Amino acid sequence: MRIIIDAMGGDNAPLEIVRGALNAAKARPGLEITLVGREAEVRRAADQCGGLPQGVSIVNATEVIDMHDDPATAFKVKKDSSMTVGLNLLKAGEGDAFVSAGSTGALLSAGTLLVKRVRGIRRAAMAPLVPTAGKGVVLVDCGANAECTAEYLIQFAYLGSFYAAKALGMERPRVGLLNIGAEDSKGDSLRREAYQALTEAGEAGHLHFIGNIEAKEAVKGGCDVVVADGFSGNVMLKTIEGTASFLGSELKGMFKKSPFTMLAALLVKGGLAAFKERLNPDTIGGTPLLGLQKPVIKAHGSSGARAIENAVYQAAAAAKADLSGEIAAHMELMKTGR
Amino acid sequence: MRIIIDAMGGDNAPLEIVRGALNAAKARPGLEITLVGREAEVRRAADQCGGLPQGVSIVNATEVIDMHDDPATAFKVKKDSSMTVGLNLLKAGEGDAFVSAGSTGALLSAGTLLVKRVRGIRRAAMAPLVPTAGKGVVLVDCGANAECTAEYLIQFAYLGSFYAAKALGMERPRVGLLNIGAEDSKGDSLRREAYQALTEAGEAGHLHFIGNIEAKEAVKGGCDVVVADGFSGNVMLKTIEGTASFLGSELKGMFKKSPFTMLAALLVKGGLAAFKERLNPDTIGGTPLLGLQKPVIKAHGSSGARAIENAVYQAAAAAKADLSGEIAAHMELMKTGR
Repeated sequence: MRIIIDAMGGDNAPLEIVRGALNAAKARPGLEITLVGREAEVRRAADQCGGLPQGVSIVNATEVIDMHDDPATAFKVKKDSSMTVGLNLLKAGEGDAFVSAGSTGALLSAGTLLVKRVRGIRRAAMAPLVPTAGKGVVLVDCGANAECTAEYLIQFAYLGSFYAAKALGMERPRVGLLNIGAEDSKGDSLRREAYQALTEAGEAGHLHFIGNIEAKEAVKGGCDVVVADGFSGNVMLKTIEGTASFLGSELKGMFKKSPFTMLAALLVKGGLAAFKERLNPDTIGGTPLLGLQKPVIKAHGSSGARAIENAVYQAAAAAKADLSGEIAAHMELMKTGR
Repeated sequence: MRIIIDAMGGDNAPLEIVRGALNAAKARPGLEITLVGREAEVRRAADQCGGLPQGVSIVNATEVIDMHDDPATAFKVKKDSSMTVGLNLLKAGEGDAFVSAGSTGALLSAGTLLVKRVRGIRRAAMAPLVPTAGKGVVLVDCGANAECTAEYLIQFAYLGSFYAAKALGMERPRVGLLNIGAEDSKGDSLRREAYQALTEAGEAGHLHFIGNIEAKEAVKGGCDVVVADGFSGNVMLKTIEGTASFLGSELKGMFKKSPFTMLAALLVKGGLAAFKERLNPDTIGGTPLLGLQKPVIKAHGSSGARAIENAVYQAAAAAKADLSGEIAAHMELMKTGR
């Protein structure tokens, strides 16, 4: 498996990106890794990590897309950026998947326009695995598409289901439609239309559709894939992050109150670490852009080496799963004519 | 102040409802309370709580709206239900505010059609005070209106701001528009239109509009009023509930692991209780229906005596604040002509 990595994207580039990539290469010798970025800087970073191991190469790209660039056009304006060069390599078959911790908007535009969507797919969607009770839930879409049609939502349901089954190994993933109540009449007209079509798909055996699901139940592990428009999906994702952060700081305050509570903190140190770990986005790695012809993984902008290493494994799993083949094979089911 | 209470609504009616009402009457002798429901049952419940104190009376209503009734028509079909009778008393000026722990949908329909909206207000909105870092945030709308226009959102902003200032005593409440990014171009067309109008209202000094706010920042206390369509507002509210419940059970598991962790739990017992208390909806009481001519408060379906007592205080505060007068006085600002 050959993974292409944007070595210049993210807050900790290039050093942490390179370190994560090299760790992945060392841990899984079967992986071939291409680091894309300013060659001298990438090489210097690699030297700091003990040099380039076998199977890792560098492709030079002189520009870097940053937060000041217009996401919609950055990849065109900066043709020699690490993101553009990397995605072009992916498109040309010089790799099987691409990982970047750079600008989400730029990656979404560039991924869609360079790598292109699978024929028939209306919109690429972002689908993080969100930590919940149980194994976590694939949330699709979490913000790429603020405005959706019922057809988009139906496609998101299939994209999320294929990803959960093929790349994450979930068996017969339970697909729920994010809604403000469980009854079939709930929500707005968009939800009612999507509900109807997904119910039919479920009855025909194409999907394991379990109906509407409220955000509360989804967070408690009530389904494996939650289908949402990018607006409410983003609200759900960011609310989980905010609540975890708010509760975490309340807890911290609680443990700092007195010598007794500090002793308590010591006694549950291991448990607290495991607790934090469970909510740590670095463990998962990144968010796939579903619906493209080849896997593109967006790593957190704040990714450290560990997050990048995990994103590389995730990219390899996505490439192995051949999602685009799976999508193409089922394209007829995803055309609603609505 | 005269508060009318639906004694038959909610999972713990009538006993806990009556108990909460009587506790409020005893704690605040200035309050007059009317309990509406099946007289014999309400009287028996009152006897179990030590009898009716001064200032508390019972009005008989022979029917009860339950979960099997159609929310849209229940109040008409069951004309002698505690909810319908209570709201008619409110409308007739026999009380200053109404509290019910009964069906949300039925209360929304009945409140809108019997008590009626303030002239010019397009939709009543539900506006709970959501626990966040800081004082909490008024979330308007949290689910009454799944489909919204920009005009609704603009009105929600004023309704929430008046409520926060007049009934909750927040000074110059910071109003944020729930969105998927802070920049003014973010979100869907609904958000962009509302953003534009709210920015103008802010510049004119009518509102303290602080711009778009992401769910994460809202939960971390970044504003005092968060304006949302009822769909994404509900997703935010339910996600907070789900995340708090999920993290709470993870914590519980952590403290139960060994004798050491159980000792730790003992050492932070007070802190944990305060922590739970902070997230306890019973502390706040209920959710006001904003935009009606008189205050109507929806208490949680699972309300115990304490939640009802707090809802009564909240109803009294809302009545004292004369929100409908405030709204009517500013109605011209809320007409967008859009």
